[in-house]
Formats: sequence, C-alpha cells, structure tokens
Amino acid sequence: MSGGLRVWQDMEKEREALQTWKQRVEQELDRVMAFWMEHSHDQEHGGFFTCLGRDGQVYDDLKYVWLQGRQGHLRTPSPPSLENPHIPSTPPQVWMYCRLYRKLERFRSPALLDSAKAGGEFLLRYARVAPPGKKCAFVLTRDGRPVKVQRTVFSECFYTMAMNELWRVTGEACYQKEAVEMMDQIVYWVREDPSGLGRPRLPGAPASESMAVPMMLLNLVDQLGEADEELAGNYAELGDWCARRILQHVQRDGQAVLENVSEDGEELSGCLGRHQNPGHALEAGWFLLRHAIRKGDPKLRAHVISKFLLLPFRSGWDPDHGGLFYFQDADGLCPTQLEWAMKLWWPHSEAMIAFLMGYSDSGDPALLHLFYQVAEYTFRQFRDPEYGEWFGYLNQEGKVALTIKGGPFKGCFHVPRCLAMCEEMLGALLSRLALAPSPGSGFPPAVSPAQQGAK
Amino acid sequence: MSGGLRVWQDMEKEREALQTWKQRVEQELDRVMAFWMEHSHDQEHGGFFTCLGRDGQVYDDLKYVWLQGRQGHLRTPSPPSLENPHIPSTPPQVWMYCRLYRKLERFRSPALLDSAKAGGEFLLRYARVAPPGKKCAFVLTRDGRPVKVQRTVFSECFYTMAMNELWRVTGEACYQKEAVEMMDQIVYWVREDPSGLGRPRLPGAPASESMAVPMMLLNLVDQLGEADEELAGNYAELGDWCARRILQHVQRDGQAVLENVSEDGEELSGCLGRHQNPGHALEAGWFLLRHAIRKGDPKLRAHVISKFLLLPFRSGWDPDHGGLFYFQDADGLCPTQLEWAMKLWWPHSEAMIAFLMGYSDSGDPALLHLFYQVAEYTFRQFRDPEYGEWFGYLNQEGKVALTIKGGPFKGCFHVPRCLAMCEEMLGALLSRLALAPSPGSGFPPAVSPAQQGAK
Repeated sequence: MSGGLRVWQDMEKEREALQTWKQRVEQELDRVMAFWMEHSHDQEHGGFFTCLGRDGQVYDDLKYVWLQGRQGHLRTPSPPSLENPHIPSTPPQVWMYCRLYRKLERFRSPALLDSAKAGGEFLLRYARVAPPGKKCAFVLTRDGRPVKVQRTVFSECFYTMAMNELWRVTGEACYQKEAVEMMDQIVYWVREDPSGLGRPRLPGAPASESMAVPMMLLNLVDQLGEADEELAGNYAELGDWCARRILQHVQRDGQAVLENVSEDGEELSGCLGRHQNPGHALEAGWFLLRHAIRKGDPKLRAHVISKFLLLPFRSGWDPDHGGLFYFQDADGLCPTQLEWAMKLWWPHSEAMIAFLMGYSDSGDPALLHLFYQVAEYTFRQFRDPEYGEWFGYLNQEGKVALTIKGGPFKGCFHVPRCLAMCEEMLGALLSRLALAPSPGSGFPPAVSPAQQGAK
Repeated sequence: MSGGLRVWQDMEKEREALQTWKQRVEQELDRVMAFWMEHSHDQEHGGFFTCLGRDGQVYDDLKYVWLQGRQGHLRTPSPPSLENPHIPSTPPQVWMYCRLYRKLERFRSPALLDSAKAGGEFLLRYARVAPPGKKCAFVLTRDGRPVKVQRTVFSECFYTMAMNELWRVTGEACYQKEAVEMMDQIVYWVREDPSGLGRPRLPGAPASESMAVPMMLLNLVDQLGEADEELAGNYAELGDWCARRILQHVQRDGQAVLENVSEDGEELSGCLGRHQNPGHALEAGWFLLRHAIRKGDPKLRAHVISKFLLLPFRSGWDPDHGGLFYFQDADGLCPTQLEWAMKLWWPHSEAMIAFLMGYSDSGDPALLHLFYQVAEYTFRQFRDPEYGEWFGYLNQEGKVALTIKGGPFKGCFHVPRCLAMCEEMLGALLSRLALAPSPGSGFPPAVSPAQQGAK
C-alpha cells in the first residue's frame, strides 16, 4: 500500500469518526433541548423552573435565578472561598435559547425566541434586588421575590450575557443597554472597588484571587465583543488583563494550575492555596484559547494547550475508574471537600469543548484522542437514555449518586453549550477535511473563533 | 432450667455485653484523646490546630475557632439554610478537656487543664471580632486574626459552653461572667432581635426555623444549669420554649422529623421543607430526653424516644450497606446535596449516645440492641486502628472517602463526647445491674441526668 493511500485511508477514518460524533452530538442536543422546553417553562409566572427530577417533574418551584451552576468550581476547603462562581439558571437559559436560535438553523423557531424573551422579561422585572442598584438576587420565589443575595459578581455576569444575547437576536436596544451598563458595574467592582458587594475584609483573610473572576470577565469580553469592533476595542485591555490574571494561576514551575493565588500571583498557604479543580482549569483553557486565537498569539496558544488542557487532564483524570476528579490537592493530600472524588457533568462538558477546540487549533491528534476519551466516558456515564438530559453527579466509580436533572447547581447551560459548540467544531473540522486539497497535504488551516461558533 | 435461673443467665449475658462495651469505649476514649493531645496543641501561639491528616500531621494551620463541625447538619438544598450550626473547634476542645478533667478521674491531669486554660485564653484574646461587641469569628489565622465571620449564633454558643466549663474546673469567676453575658446576648438575638447578626431579611425568604437553634439553646440551658439552682431557675422557661420549638419539627402526623419548619410550626414548601437529617434528629433526641428527665415528664420521655430515636433510625438507616444516611427527603425524592448518601462520623456518635440514654431511661431492650447495632457499625467502619481517632467521612458503601482526622468540620468533640458519655452510662447500667436485688426483679431504677455524667 502506498504512503499516499495510507494517509488517505487515515483521513477517511478520521472523517468517519468525526462524522459519527457530529451525529451523536447533534441528536443529543435535540434531546437535551426537548427536555428543557418540555419541563422547565413556567407558563404562569414566566421564567424557568430549575429543579427538575429525573423524569422532568418539578420538585421545587424556587427559581435559581442565580443558580450555583458551578457550585464547587471554587468550593474551597475554607476559609470559604472569597469568590464563588454562581451560575444563574434563568440568565444561562435565556442565553442558551438565544444562542441556539442565532447559531443553529434548526433552532430558529418563534417558540424558542418567545421563551427566551419571556425569561428576559422575568429577569428585567425581578433579578435586581433594589433597582436602580445593580445587585442581582441569587434565588427567587416562583413569583419573583428575592430569597437570597450573594456578595459576588457572578449573578451580574450571567445577567449581562443573557441581555447581550437577547439584544443580538431581537435587535432591541434596551437589552444591550442593560448588558453594557451591568458590565461597567462589574468591572468597577472587580478592578476599582469591591466594597459595594458588601463583603467585609477581615484582617486574617488573605488578599486572594480565585480564577473564576478573571475567567468570567474574559468570557464577557468575548461575548460583548463578538462582531462589535467598538466594544471589542473598548474591552481589549480588559481582556489582556483577564488573561494575565488567569495565567498567574499556573504555579510551581508550570506544574500545577491552582484555583486561588495571592493578588500578586503567589501561591497561598494551606488548603486554600493547594486547591485544584481540573474541570475549571479546562474551562479556563478554552476561554484562554479563544482569546489567544483572537489575538493571533501562537506562543500563548501552545502555552494554554500545555498548561490548561494537557496538565489538568494528566493530574485530574481518575486512572482507576475514569472521569475527572472534582477537586484535588496540589500536594496530593486528601481534599477536605466531601465530594472531591465525585464525577460531575460540567467538568466533562468543559473538557469536551477544550480538547476539540485544542485539536481544531493545533491539529495535534493527541488532543482529538483526548476528546474521544472524554466524550466516550461522558456519553456512557452521564446520559440518561430513558428520560433525556444528563445526570449531574456520579460517585467515584461512576454510579449515579443524584438522579436530579436540574437543581440549585445544574440547569439548561453546560450540557447544551457543550453539545452546540462541539457540533459546530465537528462540522468545521469536517468541512476542512473535505477541502483538504490532496492526501498527505497535512492538517487543514485553523478555524477562527468566529467559525467555531457558539462559545 | 428454672425461670429464675434463665433470667439470671440473661442478666449475666447482658452484664457481660455491657462490660465488654464499657471496656472498648474506655480504651477508645484514651486513644482518641491521646491523638488530640499529641497532635493538636500549638505550643507557639496557643489554641489548637484543627486540620490534622490521618497520622496527625497538620495540613493547614488555620484555626477553625468556629469550625463547622456539624457542617451539614443543616446544609439545606437552598435557599441556603438560614441557620448553620457551626461547631467551633477551639471552644469544643476546651469544653471537652475541662469536661473530662471534671468527670473522669483518669483525665484529672494538670497537663490537660493547662491546655484547656491556654485554649481559653486564646479564645478570650481572639475569638471576638470587635470587642466589646459579642460577635465571634468563625475561623482565625494561626496567630489569631479573624478570617471569616458567620451571621449565626453558633460560634457564640460554643464559646459559652467552653467558658462555663472552664469556670467549673478553675473556679475563676471571669470565665463564668463571659459565659453568662454571652448567653444573654444569644438569647436576645434568637428571641428578641436578630438584626445584630447582620443577615438581611429578603421578601422571598420564608420565616423558617432550623432545628439547630432551639437545640443549641437547650444544650446551653443544660450546660449552665448543672448543679446551679439559680441559673437553672433563670433558664427554666427558656428550656421549655426550646423543647416546644424542637417538638414542632415532628410533622406529617408524627411520621417525620423535618429540619426546617415555619416559625409557627408548619411544614415549609419545597426541598427546604422536606429536608431531613437523621443524625441531627437523634442528637435532638438525647437533648430532649435529658430535658424530659430533668422535668420528670414520663409522657415526654416516651414521645421523644418514639419520635426522635426510633423514627429517625427507621427511616435513616441504610438497609443495604448499614450506617445512617446524611440527608434525606421526606417524600423519598433525591436530595440535592452531593453528600446525602455518605456516612459521617457524628450522626453515628450521636446515635450511640441517644440509644444508650434511651435504654438507660426506659429499659426497653430494643434500644439497647440499637445501641449495639450502631456501635458495632461505628467501631468497625470509622475507627482507625493504625493511627488512632476516627475517619469522618465514608461513602455509602462504607469505604473511607476522606482520610483526614480533623478539618474544617471535625475536631476534638463528637467522638470523645460520645465515648465519655457512653462510658459513664455503661458504668451506671452495670452498677444498677449489680444492685438488682434478685433474679427476675425487673429493670433497675432509671438514672438521673446527673448520674449519666458528661453531656
């Protein structure tokens, strides 16, 4: 067999594998979205139910307007993390509906748009605790009364994402105004003066930075700057600042990504300093990779793939049972979080995005194989073939520990975002393969973030 | 064989079983205390290290002055519980050292007393965040600077316990003054005006009561009133109020103990209302049982045994793997806490106390058998025969999930309190058996709370 033929056969095999995964991911996205559209809409009060049992039944009618979707991203041993990235359930769901409507032809239905707008109106009416103040609630009653407020910026970040995406699909300026004004407020809280958040600064509390804050901000820079040169320009310096701050979390001569570092980028003492969250590092990885691609910075792209994709996978993948550990201690000590060895849906969703994006960017087949490895585990262990959507929480061995599909910490966000992004990236890879001029011509040119679609 | 002989043989068998357990418990208490005395003392700054690895090594030098020892007692699905019972590690350790010094002859060593006093001085100097204000910190740096403050009364409750016990062993009036003044402040926060705790009351937050608050207060009434007729009289009405409030948590026609109820004693909606914590109900059980015995109220005693001992055990014991579940949902739905199915050390310690006290009070052999069942499981699964002390966290199947011996949520408190109380109760039961006038004369007279020793 000639070398050229073998290369052609290899490409054909790759094409088939990519095609198979594209179909699986596409079908799964349809099933997942059907689950949320069937079970989560509150026709009476607007907004979305977030607490859905295995079969979609509502087991609590509280609305986690700011659900802690990434709950444990930063649940540090204690002192309880200074920052806790909470994912609002209504804003992400609004964002998700709009994003799908905008990016994937088959989701361009008036019903989806109407639900997103209804969710947006619910947010406009109820999310802020004391308008015109910008602080948003964390959880609301079914009819919109605030139950709890968090002293972080995460609820406001998701509010901003939802409003910007609503503007993109409706063209209504009031949404964009909300988004940009909230963004200004968030940047002020983070970079100028956090006192408005109401957190007391105690003499013994170290001045630490959790990776979540620059990550969320970098994600917002990406969101607001898409196809908007003016805003992209306004936030360019902020984007660079965020990237620098995230990169400070690579510690120990490049051998570990630590969730919390001092404000000047040094390792903190104790459990807080040693705390690791492999899924969070992988998510930061693809945020940074998009930033590096936008900037056209090949050195940064390689650094990100090495430190935020390969390194966290190497240390975070469970060699015995598969899956990514939830938390680890950089010294290999026992973490103090009860759930440290559990396998959660979102680190696996983030890993799928990160590895496929890393492969799309670099063409390194090792990254494609990691995508397959994570995706196989994820589809096998988390999917619920019976009722749809994914289980969120497995024990270390991969057994379902919680049967809920939505809850305080899981909503219509990570799973469909992962599936939509993977569908688009797989499509782009297949197109590139189809364009490849001849066998043996090497890896096709990298796609731009814009081509990579839904972020 | 004559009936009298058989009764005599049965009593002999019981005596042997009680004697065996008394020895096991006694030896275990010695080993456990040796662990803490060897590893937890901070000779340089005073106070105690709380973060100890399996072999006693300090893995973090933060001092959980107010460690969340019962961390999940109330970790409700969300809205995050309005009350979170945090166990301070230094105050309980001070309390424990003093209590052992006072109650068990073999612990009456100057070294133990000196350590307790050093811990007490550390508390007097650093526990309050802004003296003369009464609010206490939740966690301190090694040298006593506050890292975090909680907006609950639990830190202050444990401070009160420690100070009162220090006064009992030293006779120094300053400690008792601290205890009584802090108690007044706590009662004011709980019954008059909680605004000083700094928790905002939001329109959507239900006016709910967590069982922890009246429980902790009832425990303080017991602590301060011991052999002190004046204080016991002062707090008599408070004790009755606490008992009434705890009893309101028996819901659903007496078929469930719920962790959170409305302030007027109705079931709350959603996960918050359905939340159950079997270990906490059992602990409330023995607090209430001591109250009922003090009051000489046989009807209440029987009610408590039925609703707070037998009922939580029936619903909370894992029929497949043994051990008490950490959290449950009263409708049998899946709890939203990731750790709901784990087995923790403290519910088992509390269950051992509760069943032995229930048996001591009622003579019902079913309760003695439950004590044996729980104690066998506990000693088999939680004890670490290699390095001493107990593991704190097992997975559902009973495998050690966290190897730490002390941490943000586990200190020198539940295990030695359980062992000391069981040792004394087993001793009292053996004495009663020895006094039993003749075979067949029935169950010996009940012991009083005072005879039951360490609370």
